[in-house]
Amino acid sequence: MTLIGKAVVAQGGGPTAVINQSLVGIIEEAKRHPEITRVYGAVRGVEGIVNEDLVDLTQETSRNLNDVAMTPSSALLSTRVRPDKAYCREIFKVLKAHEIRYFFYIGGNDSSDTVRIVNEYAEVEGYALRAIHVPKTIDNDLLGNDHTPGFGSAARFVMQAFSGINLDMKALGGIYVGIIMGRHAGFLTASASAARKFPGDGPHLIYLPERHFDMETFLADVKHVYDKLGRCVIAVSEGIVDAEGVPIVTKHMKSLELDAHGNVNISGNGALGNLLAESIKAKLKIKRVRADTFGYIQRCFLGNVSDVDQEEAREVGEKAVQFAVRQSKSGSVCIERIGNYAVQYTILPIQEVAGLTQTMPDIYINEQGNDVTPEFREYIMPLLGSDIPKTAVIRAPKVEKIIHKEK
Amino acid sequence: MTLIGKAVVAQGGGPTAVINQSLVGIIEEAKRHPEITRVYGAVRGVEGIVNEDLVDLTQETSRNLNDVAMTPSSALLSTRVRPDKAYCREIFKVLKAHEIRYFFYIGGNDSSDTVRIVNEYAEVEGYALRAIHVPKTIDNDLLGNDHTPGFGSAARFVMQAFSGINLDMKALGGIYVGIIMGRHAGFLTASASAARKFPGDGPHLIYLPERHFDMETFLADVKHVYDKLGRCVIAVSEGIVDAEGVPIVTKHMKSLELDAHGNVNISGNGALGNLLAESIKAKLKIKRVRADTFGYIQRCFLGNVSDVDQEEAREVGEKAVQFAVRQSKSGSVCIERIGNYAVQYTILPIQEVAGLTQTMPDIYINEQGNDVTPEFREYIMPLLGSDIPKTAVIRAPKVEKIIHKEK
Repeated sequence: MTLIGKAVVAQGGGPTAVINQSLVGIIEEAKRHPEITRVYGAVRGVEGIVNEDLVDLTQETSRNLNDVAMTPSSALLSTRVRPDKAYCREIFKVLKAHEIRYFFYIGGNDSSDTVRIVNEYAEVEGYALRAIHVPKTIDNDLLGNDHTPGFGSAARFVMQAFSGINLDMKALGGIYVGIIMGRHAGFLTASASAARKFPGDGPHLIYLPERHFDMETFLADVKHVYDKLGRCVIAVSEGIVDAEGVPIVTKHMKSLELDAHGNVNISGNGALGNLLAESIKAKLKIKRVRADTFGYIQRCFLGNVSDVDQEEAREVGEKAVQFAVRQSKSGSVCIERIGNYAVQYTILPIQEVAGLTQTMPDIYINEQGNDVTPEFREYIMPLLGSDIPKTAVIRAPKVEKIIHKEK
Repeated sequence: MTLIGKAVVAQGGGPTAVINQSLVGIIEEAKRHPEITRVYGAVRGVEGIVNEDLVDLTQETSRNLNDVAMTPSSALLSTRVRPDKAYCREIFKVLKAHEIRYFFYIGGNDSSDTVRIVNEYAEVEGYALRAIHVPKTIDNDLLGNDHTPGFGSAARFVMQAFSGINLDMKALGGIYVGIIMGRHAGFLTASASAARKFPGDGPHLIYLPERHFDMETFLADVKHVYDKLGRCVIAVSEGIVDAEGVPIVTKHMKSLELDAHGNVNISGNGALGNLLAESIKAKLKIKRVRADTFGYIQRCFLGNVSDVDQEEAREVGEKAVQFAVRQSKSGSVCIERIGNYAVQYTILPIQEVAGLTQTMPDIYINEQGNDVTPEFREYIMPLLGSDIPKTAVIRAPKVEKIIHKEK
């Protein structure tokens, strides 16, 4: 049954560099369907619905929408609120009052769970609503997706950062530890591997939340690389855990900070990097050890995006509207890889995606658990987009020594 | 007097994103002058000369040299060695043995001091040598220069990072502290200001090493912004000092690490960011406080450079050779701003640059010492290069409330 009414679109959770491509994809596609009488934007996710803090996106110019699409972070602002029954009641009051029949929510795991909750409430209430989750997350951990919008651009940032770091450490030597976002899934950390081009290039070691982290093994790995190369570049996921599953970083934090979804905050400080750097200095007696926490820079850096990611983020927005209007469906829009490289979009029942986490398949992680496999390289490369900047090394021949003649 | 002989080029200190433009500028220009019979590259700065670890750069292809020029970090690798008399003796043994009459050293303050030492040694020894310092430093703190190659690209990185951070914090609220490189000069930290476009855009506060940092004043500043906007984005230089001139970060470090030039290492850890974030949490009772230390990512991120910086870095290399051959001069190549925007290149006696530090003029810093002035904006904008990515906000009209009618 085709519903006639208004649509509301909102954005939830952490931002990405391309999340507004999806927003604009939804707006532009919705304008092509007379069933959707208006497109409202809710300011700060579901909070904007409850507070009736809505803007009429059908009164925006195409030029500005195109510029918004190129702008990182949620243009409609964001929230981490997780609706309960009482909250849903408030949501539906507003949906009914404004005759909203289409709900598009752009977000990650937690936001997909919000869509599930809203969808279930609509069914119980008997309120005809199409509730669609539009995927985004730099963590790349949404079930049912080959990869998620936002990931490719963040991965490209990590790759370009590690390309530079790699050359930096080659020039000056020592140990470098880069801490990358990713609570349960190591995809973004693993993307650092794409920075390797020439023999000896780093990152030389990669530690992921999918494998248990053991300090002794880590130090032995670092020593092995350093003894050989005089340097060691290491990519570490913020979410690495010990054999009991306890995040390494929380073992050393004075106080834990929980968000509305009950997640411990493990970003926004340098604790894990400092811990690893201090351990290397103390145990391996290496002087030049540097640790950087990539932090918030990596998730919506302006103007350095993957064009593939950009295009797909736009398309998931368009498809969300098409699934809702042409197929009268609710659910979660998913990206399926169907070629090398090509994708198609499907829609899954929201229960199959909501609140679930996809981690890196074993085939992408090496046996020792300290690097990725060639299969991961095949997976990641197309997602980074085109025009990847080149690097080159000097290949000039050595000059024959006169003073220090070789014997 | 025109000297005939070989040239040696080397790179010292921390790398930049465009340092190889200067290297390739020297090589390509040197090949146009028959007085320079060969161009050797010394591997790892002056270490490469002493160890006779030289490569013949006149046996490189133009294509590869162009790719090297686009590659961040010192292609000839780097060093922090500071030559003393005994070291100079070793240097000159090699220069004489290979009939090297031109010495080009690309680097910052410490490297300029190396050129001074080598130059003085040559004069005492009566060895005819043109010793030229070619400027580079992301810190932008070389005396005699309007700005230095490497700075514009690092500044552009900082600006783009803060553009994203600004939008990120706008979407989710809270406090963000970004720690930027810069021991004595705040230029790079101040560049974060270029990220501002719309009213309310951050960074809202900027703290520089040129002004004394006082924790109480800082917390009052943060509270003031946060109370007004519900967020506060702050750019802080790693080198901020208290009223006694003691770096804030060293007050809280367990052990100090000194380099060969006697500088305390203040990068490569998250100590300052953590200190500021913890102070804000404790004193202002604000929950969502994040601190990132930009660290090594900012100085040679691959492929995100200022084209102006790139071109000037190439030109200082070319000019170094022209000054040495056509004007038979030794000294330090400097960039002078002669228009809005245009530059010319001069050469200063090395003593006027070597080991000296330029900091931000008072005219660029506001009275409260927590922001920059419009004069700084005029200074920085041309250096960031062209095609700066746009940002946009949604300007759609509000929807009239039905449930929560305004009274």
